[in-house]
Amino acid sequence: MRDTARVVEPGEIAPEIDVVRWFNTSESPTLDRLRGRVVVLYAFQMLCRGCVLAATPLAQRVHERFAGDDVTVLGLHTVFEHHDAMTPVSLAAYLHEFGLTLPIGVDRPTDTGMPATMSRYGMRGTPTWVLIDRDGVVRAHAFGAVDELMLGATVAELRGIPA
Amino acid sequence: MRDTARVVEPGEIAPEIDVVRWFNTSESPTLDRLRGRVVVLYAFQMLCRGCVLAATPLAQRVHERFAGDDVTVLGLHTVFEHHDAMTPVSLAAYLHEFGLTLPIGVDRPTDTGMPATMSRYGMRGTPTWVLIDRDGVVRAHAFGAVDELMLGATVAELRGIPA
Amino acid sequence: MRDTARVVEPGEIAPEIDVVRWFNTSESPTLDRLRGRVVVLYAFQMLCRGCVLAATPLAQRVHERFAGDDVTVLGLHTVFEHHDAMTPVSLAAYLHEFGLTLPIGVDRPTDTGMPATMSRYGMRGTPTWVLIDRDGVVRAHAFGAVDELMLGATVAELRGIPA
Amino acid sequence: MRDTARVVEPGEIAPEIDVVRWFNTSESPTLDRLRGRVVVLYAFQMLCRGCVLAATPLAQRVHERFAGDDVTVLGLHTVFEHHDAMTPVSLAAYLHEFGLTLPIGVDRPTDTGMPATMSRYGMRGTPTWVLIDRDGVVRAHAFGAVDELMLGATVAELRGIPA
Repeated sequence: MRDTARVVEPGEIAPEIDVVRWFNTSESPTLDRLRGRVVVLYAFQMLCRGCVLAATPLAQRVHERFAGDDVTVLGLHTVFEHHDAMTPVSLAAYLHEFGLTLPIGVDRPTDTGMPATMSRYGMRGTPTWVLIDRDGVVRAHAFGAVDELMLGATVAELRGIPA
Repeated sequence: MRDTARVVEPGEIAPEIDVVRWFNTSESPTLDRLRGRVVVLYAFQMLCRGCVLAATPLAQRVHERFAGDDVTVLGLHTVFEHHDAMTPVSLAAYLHEFGLTLPIGVDRPTDTGMPATMSRYGMRGTPTWVLIDRDGVVRAHAFGAVDELMLGATVAELRGIPA
Repeated sequence: MRDTARVVEPGEIAPEIDVVRWFNTSESPTLDRLRGRVVVLYAFQMLCRGCVLAATPLAQRVHERFAGDDVTVLGLHTVFEHHDAMTPVSLAAYLHEFGLTLPIGVDRPTDTGMPATMSRYGMRGTPTWVLIDRDGVVRAHAFGAVDELMLGATVAELRGIPA
Repeated sequence: MRDTARVVEPGEIAPEIDVVRWFNTSESPTLDRLRGRVVVLYAFQMLCRGCVLAATPLAQRVHERFAGDDVTVLGLHTVFEHHDAMTPVSLAAYLHEFGLTLPIGVDRPTDTGMPATMSRYGMRGTPTWVLIDRDGVVRAHAFGAVDELMLGATVAELRGIPA
């Protein structure tokens, strides 16, 4: 994909997410309200092959292992291609069929085709992982496959640092 | 899923398929026109987990290995749940993202929620495999996971039997 | 590995195997006595990584699916490196721990380091698959990874051809 | 396997290891000399199926990701069955063929069949993971499959705690 946006780098304050609808949560999480907690922000598309086969199941495992008082895992459905194919209706069926229970927000569509949060972060594609510390600072921003050991380690490290 | 339909058993003539739209082929295959050839009929849903992770990639491999003068592999998108989530628009994106090139027909929707061909065959769910010999006779009808060695063997055996 | 031996090609009569000891069978199979049956000859080393992770489990599956009146699957332990590490004592423990029940013969050691049967066939390394028809003719000779669908198909085809 | 030994539990001082020979290191690591560092002690057998297919590759990855100034990963070859099959000669070939480069010690054989270190720790079988903090205290002792995310997290947590 094209990427003309500036990439949010580690050390910068994490831009707020812009979500039009949530699944798997009755709240409407914002990074502002999650300040004081570690946030794992996982951006994906439901029909992105690398997401379906590896990254999304990993995000679900991160949610199952770490979600609690100190850590929140947020999926973000960042549709930047095949927009008509990956509507919230299709997303809901996908979540049901694949047993995905992590909170997932639908990134706000825009005129450019690139959704709002994806654009703010300068994400290059899906899957993308953003790790945010208790102070709301981006500590990692990775596109593509991530190492499961290192992901576990980084979440634990961020959790170990007081706000 | 409920299954009140009579199951088409091995030894019976394969009922004709009823497809409203094809992907990955400019022709409109029918079992009647394929008489004289072995047909592997693979029924799936694009968001069925067992299909996505195992059966659909296997159907693609069967197509790549065997499709030719004697064998035709036909995917059949038999949507019987989450109808709004698995429209042809979504199916097209899925085929593109996952690199699926086998011919795929969309089974005709009906008032019952169960599409026409799926109903005629009494299929119990997805994935379902139906192997049809050169004379148009069903030789195997299996729901769920199939063994790759045995699938290869059965296709080869049917191919080896003259019409 | 070096391979100065002439490779036995499809169409040639399969040279007899030369085995010093069998596991998982009380008989001493020879190709001569198996004439009239299809033989899948699978050459491996117990510590060859590609064998352990993929090819040997596949050979076991071929044995489980096809071994019977018409087909015999024979493992052949062709140790051509690390000879002291892969003795019959170690092989026996490996077969036990990994639940391998197909008949396995130990290829006869020679002064050259290359065992006798491996040398006769001009095998290039492990894993190697040799498919032999009912008349004792080599029909396939493959080094490395094989496709599971095609392996199933070829065994079925050879089984379908009368001696 | 029988296990009559008392199991070393989290919170206890880690008993010293008793190794007769090392691979992949020119030093002779002891827990005493490693005090001040986090130690991941991974006990396995080269022909234990669960070790070969999952746990030993994971131990290698832990070594690749974490070994350094603060963390040492030690494999421990704890042969308690098939003793003649898993000698150091066979182990060396296995390490070579599978590309394993983490330091591996051979646990001292005893008259009971159970090697010395395995017995001291009251390990129940292989694979077993023991995580030891900078003060030499056991912080986790697990038999069987471990979760990759949690393993990464625990190593990171222990690394983050000063001695």
